[in-house]
Amino acid sequence: MVAPLRRGLRAGPATPPDQNPPAPPPAAAGQEEIRRQNLGAVLRYVHVHGPTSRAELTSRLGLNRSTIGTLAADLVASGLVSEDVPTTARRAGRPSLVVTPRSERVYAHAVSIEPHRLRAARVGLGGHILHLRESPRAPGTALLDTIDDLVALLRAMPHDPGADTVCAGGAVAVADTARDEDGAVPAALDAALGTAEPDRPGFVAGDMADLAALAEHTRGVAAGIADLLYLYGDVGISAGIVTGGRLITGHDGHSGKVGHMVVNPHGHRCVCGSRGCWDTEAGTTALLRRAGAPAGTSPLAVVRAAALGGTAARDALYGVADWLGFGVANLVNVFNPDVVVFGGNLREVYAAGAATVRRRLDTMALPASREHLQLRAGALGADAPLIGAAEIAFENLLTDPLNGVVAG
Amino acid sequence: MVAPLRRGLRAGPATPPDQNPPAPPPAAAGQEEIRRQNLGAVLRYVHVHGPTSRAELTSRLGLNRSTIGTLAADLVASGLVSEDVPTTARRAGRPSLVVTPRSERVYAHAVSIEPHRLRAARVGLGGHILHLRESPRAPGTALLDTIDDLVALLRAMPHDPGADTVCAGGAVAVADTARDEDGAVPAALDAALGTAEPDRPGFVAGDMADLAALAEHTRGVAAGIADLLYLYGDVGISAGIVTGGRLITGHDGHSGKVGHMVVNPHGHRCVCGSRGCWDTEAGTTALLRRAGAPAGTSPLAVVRAAALGGTAARDALYGVADWLGFGVANLVNVFNPDVVVFGGNLREVYAAGAATVRRRLDTMALPASREHLQLRAGALGADAPLIGAAEIAFENLLTDPLNGVVAG
Repeated sequence: MVAPLRRGLRAGPATPPDQNPPAPPPAAAGQEEIRRQNLGAVLRYVHVHGPTSRAELTSRLGLNRSTIGTLAADLVASGLVSEDVPTTARRAGRPSLVVTPRSERVYAHAVSIEPHRLRAARVGLGGHILHLRESPRAPGTALLDTIDDLVALLRAMPHDPGADTVCAGGAVAVADTARDEDGAVPAALDAALGTAEPDRPGFVAGDMADLAALAEHTRGVAAGIADLLYLYGDVGISAGIVTGGRLITGHDGHSGKVGHMVVNPHGHRCVCGSRGCWDTEAGTTALLRRAGAPAGTSPLAVVRAAALGGTAARDALYGVADWLGFGVANLVNVFNPDVVVFGGNLREVYAAGAATVRRRLDTMALPASREHLQLRAGALGADAPLIGAAEIAFENLLTDPLNGVVAG
Repeated sequence: MVAPLRRGLRAGPATPPDQNPPAPPPAAAGQEEIRRQNLGAVLRYVHVHGPTSRAELTSRLGLNRSTIGTLAADLVASGLVSEDVPTTARRAGRPSLVVTPRSERVYAHAVSIEPHRLRAARVGLGGHILHLRESPRAPGTALLDTIDDLVALLRAMPHDPGADTVCAGGAVAVADTARDEDGAVPAALDAALGTAEPDRPGFVAGDMADLAALAEHTRGVAAGIADLLYLYGDVGISAGIVTGGRLITGHDGHSGKVGHMVVNPHGHRCVCGSRGCWDTEAGTTALLRRAGAPAGTSPLAVVRAAALGGTAARDALYGVADWLGFGVANLVNVFNPDVVVFGGNLREVYAAGAATVRRRLDTMALPASREHLQLRAGALGADAPLIGAAEIAFENLLTDPLNGVVAG
């Protein structure tokens, strides 16, 4: 069985905060422990990079050929990967077998609670969405009042009772985990789905922006990038921040509330009580206010109107893009990231106003931090939070591949 | 010998950026490697925590009693620690020997290049400053033009040629490592001091705020705190940022340039070209401008004048403290730290204006992030950058204690 993650776990590296000094490794790290770590390394590699030959695994993981062969055979026997002769052998001699994650068999549940909709996906090992269901969410519905609808979405997934599938766990992305302090949402999902028993992989929760950042960092536009600032636009703006290859969470998981940096002390009043928060100058409310559009209008409608030449929409878009660049410049001076990724509805705002964003950045960010900086629209689009949720749901399996998975 | 650290290394965790997937440990991690790690864990523990009984080391490090005894004996034999019968035995029975770092014998060189002075210290294992020398620096002197004076300070340290001392390495704190891109300063110190040979522990460089943050995190007011924002005030304001127990550095080591966040779009022109940077509203120039003091006045003179009841000085101090709180609030919303530490000349500004800083924070920081937040003046004062420099200078020794140290 997969040991259930702690309920309410937030997205982030599995390592605990630095203890001074770090505890040394057990004096007798057994062969079993080393095998477990090596199995995890092989499974994680193919999960992240896709089908990989034994030869490449040997060179990438620094293990010898026969060890890789044994590990791959163990993973095949457990039903987590398949091994196949490559369809195109490039060189003479016996081709190296290709190790492929069994995406259709091994999956995680990923759920997102967004302001206007609920989504549930089955994500296969390897990070591919196998099935996706969505339903509307009445604005303002309390988190726990969405549970019945979420369960209905999960139960509506195609399911062949005879199929030999296994579920590695589940995770739910919420816009602000601060509103779910006690992990009430994953606990309620576990209760409704019967995954609350200790021997069943249960649900965990993560912040929407953090999970989307994790997805783009693992297999999206920022794959392999160590210092990444991911900006997620929804009603407001929040950030998933990766520094030195690690997602930061802050003292209580509240880091990344960048929408409440005050950028304009003489600006508009924010729901938080401050004046001139980045949200009020560059968020959805700012775009609608500037465009004269009624509350509730989709920000994408304004972006489209601007593309069609609507003057008010274009002025609104460029005004917001300028403030977007303003806040990005401040964060770039603080973090010195390699890449800033725009996600959620900021993906379209950035795409339409990129020149304005860059112009503001070039006047405000320090040269040393902006010279090598890349600005990018997210590659995974609206699926990023679901794919990121699956990453944390798969974590136990990737850490200890043979310690069982339960039939799904 | 201590393997020299890479020249120009910036302060920061020794771990490389996350590679996806992490390489597994070597399949046959030898007993020697485990012994090396355990020796490092014992030496690091007493370096950070001071004299510690074998019994406490046994429980803190999770190793058995006889292993601790062997490790301690090896460290004694190498001259890195001493073992003594405790002066006050609290319980009946044979007392547990106390392991103490040999601070007077094993030391590191720590150097800081500050705007108005140069300092050099010999810091003993355990983090105590043994000797400290300083000389003035003419404002604007180029970094490399300070080398001769630094070398003179280092050579002026008391030195008993017959004493059995060993030097573990050296580190230099500079206000902005961006100005020393190629590690020119540590390389020049190595050349002048004869520490450039591969078998001698050489100098490394780190950012002033980063090193001060590391010192307060290791043995100061934020000891053991995982999420720490350290604000260092000098001519401007910069930050050393620890999240999840790790110092962040950004893509090229330029993170923490918080003084160039724009907080007031209608504010004063900054040397960086922007308008209303945090530096221009809450830094030294802001305090002097508001107080009507001539450029070059020490900001501490304004703080003292305010304490004596000078109206202009008090107005200046409270005005600056309000903008200080403004920027702290923004950073608290971004990072959600446990503690904000004020260092450099911000230590005195904060101490005198704490109520104003806190009031601004209470109106602008989100409740979830400010409720448990502590604001603190640095405990190590002006010595923090030197103590932090010694931390990175000792790093090789703490990682591999028995791999030699050269006579100092």
